[in-house]
Amino acid sequence: MADYIEGKRPVIEALRTQVPMKRVLLADNTKRDSLVEDILRKAKRFDVPVVTVPRKELEEKSARGSHQGVMAEAKPFGYVDITQIEAAAASYADSHDGRAIVIILDHLTDAGNLGAIARSAEVVGASGIVIPNKRSARVDASTYKSSAGAIAHLPVAQVPNLIQVMARLKERGFWIAGASEHAEDVIWKSNLKGKIALVMGNEAEGLSRVVKESCDFLVKLPIEGEVASLNVAQASTACMYEWLRQNS
Amino acid sequence: MADYIEGKRPVIEALRTQVPMKRVLLADNTKRDSLVEDILRKAKRFDVPVVTVPRKELEEKSARGSHQGVMAEAKPFGYVDITQIEAAAASYADSHDGRAIVIILDHLTDAGNLGAIARSAEVVGASGIVIPNKRSARVDASTYKSSAGAIAHLPVAQVPNLIQVMARLKERGFWIAGASEHAEDVIWKSNLKGKIALVMGNEAEGLSRVVKESCDFLVKLPIEGEVASLNVAQASTACMYEWLRQNS
Repeated sequence: MADYIEGKRPVIEALRTQVPMKRVLLADNTKRDSLVEDILRKAKRFDVPVVTVPRKELEEKSARGSHQGVMAEAKPFGYVDITQIEAAAASYADSHDGRAIVIILDHLTDAGNLGAIARSAEVVGASGIVIPNKRSARVDASTYKSSAGAIAHLPVAQVPNLIQVMARLKERGFWIAGASEHAEDVIWKSNLKGKIALVMGNEAEGLSRVVKESCDFLVKLPIEGEVASLNVAQASTACMYEWLRQNS
Repeated sequence: MADYIEGKRPVIEALRTQVPMKRVLLADNTKRDSLVEDILRKAKRFDVPVVTVPRKELEEKSARGSHQGVMAEAKPFGYVDITQIEAAAASYADSHDGRAIVIILDHLTDAGNLGAIARSAEVVGASGIVIPNKRSARVDASTYKSSAGAIAHLPVAQVPNLIQVMARLKERGFWIAGASEHAEDVIWKSNLKGKIALVMGNEAEGLSRVVKESCDFLVKLPIEGEVASLNVAQASTACMYEWLRQNS
């Protein structure tokens, strides 16, 4: 199903954050106010076709009825095959003293967390992100903003079975490190040298049992406070930097 | 000026995230739908008085005209004096092998970043956050959600002059570490042992010149990617965990 962005300000925001778009749909009776002018200007700059259609067509396509006469059709996100992430990691390791990192997300539900993790992953030089193809936050128009654009440059694979991917990565020389508050060792006592697949768990439940059992080892960030838990994107970033530190 | 939350769903969200409230204002002609019933139930549970007022009163108090017959008046956030953060840090250091950390935010503008930093700061055992009293994101109703409640448990001082606070902290045995991409050393080559004040810069500009010059040393997290920059809250968390690692 096509991914539509509805409404004047959301379409402007999507154009601004360079969400790849097929086209902008404009209802034939939409008033050319300053927001619509801004949309037309930005669409031209980013080479997105603008198509005028009967308002009825927007009504039919609209999921929320908040289109205000304007909708944008996003291009489907180009997920990669897991083999492409494996190849990218192998090539990265060759030119970086054998280090590489792949991030596996075990059924995260919050799209903002996915975007934030993608942003930090691109920054530390990760080779890609792996997400399940069901019951998981996926890349949508909002991810371009929450990742500050990084999502357009980071390979993401959507796979039917995380356990199989973990097994494949093991065969290719990766150590699988699962982040879990139940880990015995704090992360800086674990050996993160070389090729690491870092597995982060769902916001509420953490790692699922089968995923946890398929990890080579578990790591945790110590919690010294008394109230809060770590946000999964914040935890991912701290873990990724600990991997980078140990490999520097 | 009082801090008001407008509208049925925002008021429910604020009650749910336990924003401290003076009272809930209900317009006399508001229909008792299921959202309003939910508000009344939650207000009772959290012991927040509900006052019925003429709708005109809400119109006058409303900044955005989106009250839907319901507004909540938040209690002003209880900022602490900088001396309280100093005392908390001294006491924490006494019972934690001499380590303590205070986070200084140099004119952050995004309230979500302030909340995210507060959440991680509470988790690593920080003694408090210092923010300027002008041109800075401050604690508001949204911070309870973005910090996952941590803001209610972490001292925050709002000060007229960050440079003076940095000087005070130096006198009390703190090293002032500024996070800057222009730092010569990566953070894990810097000595973060003991009492550290970590200074994080504004989202767009980083640390201001005078703040940077008042730091004892600058630290950076290496950027290995080619596109993205680190979000300031993510960077703060990675730096705080590096402080914790060096002190463990």
